Amino acid sequence: MKYGARNQLIGKVLEIKKGTVMCQVQLEIPAKSPMASVMTIDSLEELGLKVGDSVKVVVKAVNVLLVRE
Amino acid sequence: MKYGARNQLIGKVLEIKKGTVMCQVQLEIPAKSPMASVMTIDSLEELGLKVGDSVKVVVKAVNVLLVRE
Amino acid sequence: MKYGARNQLIGKVLEIKKGTVMCQVQLEIPAKSPMASVMTIDSLEELGLKVGDSVKVVVKAVNVLLVRE
Amino acid sequence: MKYGARNQLIGKVLEIKKGTVMCQVQLEIPAKSPMASVMTIDSLEELGLKVGDSVKVVVKAVNVLLVRE
Amino acid sequence: MKYGARNQLIGKVLEIKKGTVMCQVQLEIPAKSPMASVMTIDSLEELGLKVGDSVKVVVKAVNVLLVRE
Amino acid sequence: MKYGARNQLIGKVLEIKKGTVMCQVQLEIPAKSPMASVMTIDSLEELGLKVGDSVKVVVKAVNVLLVRE
Repeated sequence: MKYGARNQLIGKVLEIKKGTVMCQVQLEIPAKSPMASVMTIDSLEELGLKVGDSVKVVVKAVNVLLVRE
Repeated sequence: MKYGARNQLIGKVLEIKKGTVMCQVQLEIPAKSPMASVMTIDSLEELGLKVGDSVKVVVKAVNVLLVRE
Repeated sequence: MKYGARNQLIGKVLEIKKGTVMCQVQLEIPAKSPMASVMTIDSLEELGLKVGDSVKVVVKAVNVLLVRE
Repeated sequence: MKYGARNQLIGKVLEIKKGTVMCQVQLEIPAKSPMASVMTIDSLEELGLKVGDSVKVVVKAVNVLLVRE
Repeated sequence: MKYGARNQLIGKVLEIKKGTVMCQVQLEIPAKSPMASVMTIDSLEELGLKVGDSVKVVVKAVNVLLVRE
Repeated sequence: MKYGARNQLIGKVLEIKKGTVMCQVQLEIPAKSPMASVMTIDSLEELGLKVGDSVKVVVKAVNVLLVRE
């Protein structure tokens, strides 16, 4: 499996919060910061995700914003 | 400083690759995986980034794709 | 504060519409057109936004679509 | 013409910077802040844009990040 | 009408699923795979979309992820 | 392999145009319209793509804009 994206991490599902159309999946990654993904409920069901599952976390580099505080 | 984004990490600039319009900033984050950001050369210059600098890495949760391998 | 994004405006919060997972923040900017941001309820709470607040509006240039009518 | 996006402004092309694959179009909008769009050279040619042209500037609300400084 | 995006298809609305803030529009395109768009309820109302309507489906090339399985 | 995205097509690589940092991959999909993806040269090399290869084309539904002409 190869992805055309510069950001690929491994995460563990910590919590799933469901709305009518969208849901938010909270992830634990091997870093001090948590991560999260927002997707449709349909995608969540297709993935069949539940708390504790391991997932690949993919982000295209164009969607990464750098800020200098 | 507060950001309306669910993904906020701290990164260190490892390498900068410049094109004519765009550039790619390779980042080290406190995890086993590297990260990267693609932005315009204009943004890079406004940030004044150089190798070794610390930056905030911000990603909106809608741009995070989960994959189950 | 420096952002790696080519679009940075100042907006004022006009209205907040909340769902279960996501919310929509309507903004007034110093132009004839309104703007809006969609984010998670969690992000809204972290920002602590309420009607009348001033916010920085940041958009990466890759997410700006031009159309010729 | 109706767009499924909450952010629609009118801009005027101020400058075009071309690379091999991508280009950056600087825009003047009726606000104090400038805006910019990054697209492929192919898209630029299909739009047939040149300095001084008027364009519609479209951004989906999910791609708008709010920051509280 | 010209769009600064490399992906432009024609779709037919198959189904609309509404939440409080967001909605999901299922589309049929002239290919074996279905497509879908998530937008705000406000955008849906501005578009005035209903099942059976024809729409232009626009995606910027930077938002297209390629995967090799 | 399961993806948290509502748009998944199969494409065939028609052409690859390379810049210094970014590249553009033109795709043929089983529909009348072509598609394209913009990614970093690094991602292209990791994918090892060449003309004629088959790839999975993945787009999150939030990045799909509908327009009514």
